[in-house]
Amino acid sequence: MAAELLQCRKSLVMVLSTLCLISIVVPLAQSKVHNLTWEISYQYKYLDCYKKLSIAINGMTPGPVISATQGDTIVVNVVNKLLMENVAIHWHGIRQLGTQWSDGTEGVSQCATMPGDTFTYKFVVDKAGTYMYHSHYGMQRASGLYGLIKVSPPAGESEPFTYDDEHNILLSDWYHLSSYEQATDLTSIPYVWIGEPQSLLINGRGKYDCANLDASVCNATNPQCLPSSITVVPGKTYRIRIASLTSLSSLSFQIEGHNMTVVEADGNYVEPFVTQNLYIYSGETYSVLVTANQSPSRNYWITTNVVSREPATPIGLAIFNYSPNPALENPPTTPPPGPFWNDTDSRKAQSASIKAQKDHIVPPPSSSDKVILLLNTQNTFQGRTVWSLNNVSHYMPNTPYLIALKKNWTDVFDQTASPESYDQSYDIYRVSNNTNATSSSSIYRLTFNSTVDVILQNANTMTTNNSETHPWHLHGHDFWVLGYGDGKFNLSTDTQRYNLVDPIMKNTVPLHPYGWTALRFRADNPGIWIFHCHIEEHFLLGMMVFFESGSEMVSEPPQQNMGCGKTKSLMQP
Amino acid sequence: MAAELLQCRKSLVMVLSTLCLISIVVPLAQSKVHNLTWEISYQYKYLDCYKKLSIAINGMTPGPVISATQGDTIVVNVVNKLLMENVAIHWHGIRQLGTQWSDGTEGVSQCATMPGDTFTYKFVVDKAGTYMYHSHYGMQRASGLYGLIKVSPPAGESEPFTYDDEHNILLSDWYHLSSYEQATDLTSIPYVWIGEPQSLLINGRGKYDCANLDASVCNATNPQCLPSSITVVPGKTYRIRIASLTSLSSLSFQIEGHNMTVVEADGNYVEPFVTQNLYIYSGETYSVLVTANQSPSRNYWITTNVVSREPATPIGLAIFNYSPNPALENPPTTPPPGPFWNDTDSRKAQSASIKAQKDHIVPPPSSSDKVILLLNTQNTFQGRTVWSLNNVSHYMPNTPYLIALKKNWTDVFDQTASPESYDQSYDIYRVSNNTNATSSSSIYRLTFNSTVDVILQNANTMTTNNSETHPWHLHGHDFWVLGYGDGKFNLSTDTQRYNLVDPIMKNTVPLHPYGWTALRFRADNPGIWIFHCHIEEHFLLGMMVFFESGSEMVSEPPQQNMGCGKTKSLMQP
Repeated sequence: MAAELLQCRKSLVMVLSTLCLISIVVPLAQSKVHNLTWEISYQYKYLDCYKKLSIAINGMTPGPVISATQGDTIVVNVVNKLLMENVAIHWHGIRQLGTQWSDGTEGVSQCATMPGDTFTYKFVVDKAGTYMYHSHYGMQRASGLYGLIKVSPPAGESEPFTYDDEHNILLSDWYHLSSYEQATDLTSIPYVWIGEPQSLLINGRGKYDCANLDASVCNATNPQCLPSSITVVPGKTYRIRIASLTSLSSLSFQIEGHNMTVVEADGNYVEPFVTQNLYIYSGETYSVLVTANQSPSRNYWITTNVVSREPATPIGLAIFNYSPNPALENPPTTPPPGPFWNDTDSRKAQSASIKAQKDHIVPPPSSSDKVILLLNTQNTFQGRTVWSLNNVSHYMPNTPYLIALKKNWTDVFDQTASPESYDQSYDIYRVSNNTNATSSSSIYRLTFNSTVDVILQNANTMTTNNSETHPWHLHGHDFWVLGYGDGKFNLSTDTQRYNLVDPIMKNTVPLHPYGWTALRFRADNPGIWIFHCHIEEHFLLGMMVFFESGSEMVSEPPQQNMGCGKTKSLMQP
Repeated sequence: MAAELLQCRKSLVMVLSTLCLISIVVPLAQSKVHNLTWEISYQYKYLDCYKKLSIAINGMTPGPVISATQGDTIVVNVVNKLLMENVAIHWHGIRQLGTQWSDGTEGVSQCATMPGDTFTYKFVVDKAGTYMYHSHYGMQRASGLYGLIKVSPPAGESEPFTYDDEHNILLSDWYHLSSYEQATDLTSIPYVWIGEPQSLLINGRGKYDCANLDASVCNATNPQCLPSSITVVPGKTYRIRIASLTSLSSLSFQIEGHNMTVVEADGNYVEPFVTQNLYIYSGETYSVLVTANQSPSRNYWITTNVVSREPATPIGLAIFNYSPNPALENPPTTPPPGPFWNDTDSRKAQSASIKAQKDHIVPPPSSSDKVILLLNTQNTFQGRTVWSLNNVSHYMPNTPYLIALKKNWTDVFDQTASPESYDQSYDIYRVSNNTNATSSSSIYRLTFNSTVDVILQNANTMTTNNSETHPWHLHGHDFWVLGYGDGKFNLSTDTQRYNLVDPIMKNTVPLHPYGWTALRFRADNPGIWIFHCHIEEHFLLGMMVFFESGSEMVSEPPQQNMGCGKTKSLMQP
């Protein structure tokens, strides 16, 4: 029933986007238009007590929460005040049905917006759930340009769970090096690894150890780095929306002494399951239900800690405040340490346990029209350390793909198709030694409305006995998560294990060490969409591919999306 | 004779630029085309032993020296590899006759060039002398994007002095804060002063005191911060070209135990005079002759020290190396301390002593068509500390002036004329309290080919008993320096003191504390040209004006100059 409704809505928006070739979305009756103006600037912040420039929206890092109702139209006028730096903001999880030019992905849907200029993003939040926004340009996200989007169901429509009130948790990690410093190290020859982040932030607040540092540089008493707290009334049940926009870190999230019931993932309802540790990867969002059912005489720790990589970053802390205790009163306990960083099995188990809520199953197509295998490897190319898919490290052209496609500019990007598979004799357990690795701006061209399977295949990095976790994020679509597995994917046997009954739909999914992740999506959103590892360092180093389908149905490029590369040739003299 | 030749060449180029409305410069016979490709990127450097990102050209900070012969054409393909930051490069001292679109001034002649894009600058070096190039965008120059241009006279043409060989000295100052950090402080409310620079650099090399700093941050033994040295052969005479591209500091330059004969200033020949301390302000170039006539058994210090502001920056050092002593062998002496920072009289005296070489006098027009008085004050406007001219702090529009003028876009910048004078009752000795200060993008419109006098009038800042030195730089023209004086300029008496006999022509001139500087120029270069304080902090905070004349004669904007602001409206859908 709900699935049909969703499908119906999808079709409605599709008609608009594919037939009418317009980029104006007609809001549903009674829906609201949120008109926001955001001034983007550098500001000194003490997010983890350490003084550092961050990028702020109207003075705030993280930026403001966008709260809207399904069907509402969001208009954001992004005014760039970064002096010499451009900007582009992506609305993570919003599919941009009919508003492809508002995806905010520099190099794909737009030229970055120059200082002094304003870019107006306009899109409909067409599905209740928890989403995010963040810079999608170079390594700019690492400067703190991000925030949360929460979309409520329309009046009269209920969600498959209830709660008394809700709170938001935005998780991120924080480096003391600037984005430019990070990128310079990462792209240098030889490669310089920037190390683990200095802090984990909960709602933009962390606590770096200021000992031995001058108070002008690190000030433990700066109010900006007081822990955030969530206040609850004993006995009540809360929906907590949790989002991760880390640069690097995979996280575990927990509330001391409290169970969490997972009910939503990436804007899709989850068949409820209970956990004490929610694993969350960069680019993911979850909603959990928590009942304040512990002793109300004290506060409890909210903690987050690094998993999957050996942590060098202290645990992140916030306070779960039982009213009427003081909001910032430290709990009497030592913060729980969280799970072992290398307990990969429990992470895989949790990934596998996330299924669609039984009344909100969107059945996947029973078969696919195309299967794309993507071998994830770390390589060396021309002296630089890069990340590759099927031995190709991708880079974006100087002129955004979608504009080049609309203008039939065949010289903008590599016209050879990206490879759909890799040498099946590849030993995923051996240290990567891909001597034939290359670099390309090529894309995948998919038949519009076809069904595509993508099998992400992990492998060993260039370090002995090391395989990393990669959270893969697809723009413009949700996909069905058909399954996870260990080792090399077997096309004849592993496909038999696909969950075609109640797979969760997501926009971001982890690829676990030495494992595989299988996903399926309908190429039903006209345009070209980036699919990339959401680790900022890996994205910078080429861990991305591009899926085109039906781009001829997209409207002509708006002027505000242009200004770079070959688009200048469109300027009348 | 030389003056007539110069005038003739000027006319020749003018014919091309004003009548044919073309931007292609026809090189003189036998002239050479220098085709350069510059990749602009961030690099970690230890310019003063302290590890910091700098902007490099093909890996070098400062950038390469451009060596050319008068009449040569310089083509520079600037490839922006700054990841998220735009770039624009100005060719300081090059008048861009007929090539106005190559001036490289963001906001005036071009939109900044975006990452991934390439901008091709093309211009003729039409006058022998010493020039510079540097970023002209935001505070980008402070990141080290600068270098020297030296132009030799054409074969068969001699200069009014002789020497055996020549060397270059590029002076700069160096902050450990990034350009973004500096700009954030300077534009914050309340104002945060960034302080004096950490080091003075001679040819990009300085020596910060690394004591108490971790070697990963500051490494006194890093070869990048070995002092630069100039090797001389005993008895020989050298031309030393000296240029200053400091952000803030006014400098004195000296070579221990050696006299310097000043022979060139800003590409114009100087009636020789001898000094031991050359005062040099940001944006100025000089050539001095030095004879290696001291004991050849040792090396000598080359030093530079801060003047005009109470120094907090250590003296800058290099080595004047008598061959065959080891190039980096320290002289046995203590470096001479240089003149007192507050010896304003000796600086004024030196400014006044700079006259045109007697065989190269370009006679100024005997009178002017317009006199513009510019009162230099520090103000508060909307909570920010700014610098104003006649109570107006200027900012550049989002769409470059020259493009707006060519397109008759009257909504791009303030169409009210900038004020040509100020309230003559203003007490220049009182702490500035300009409650009616404002901010504007207005310009001055000058009659083409008219003669304009500009009287720069200094005043007290917002600090008691403080008046700063401002080096004013005019684009697109040389001007005659008619005189300097103390106190308030008197229009009836001080004009009588003008030097109309042998004034030096320059493109940059100091305005001394509590004094005035009078200059005259012919508005004979079609376009719009910025005239600004060359102190990067003051430029950021509005210390600039704009002179338009004959912009209708400039060719249509090239596509590469566009891409920002209203130029996007020129893009065909």
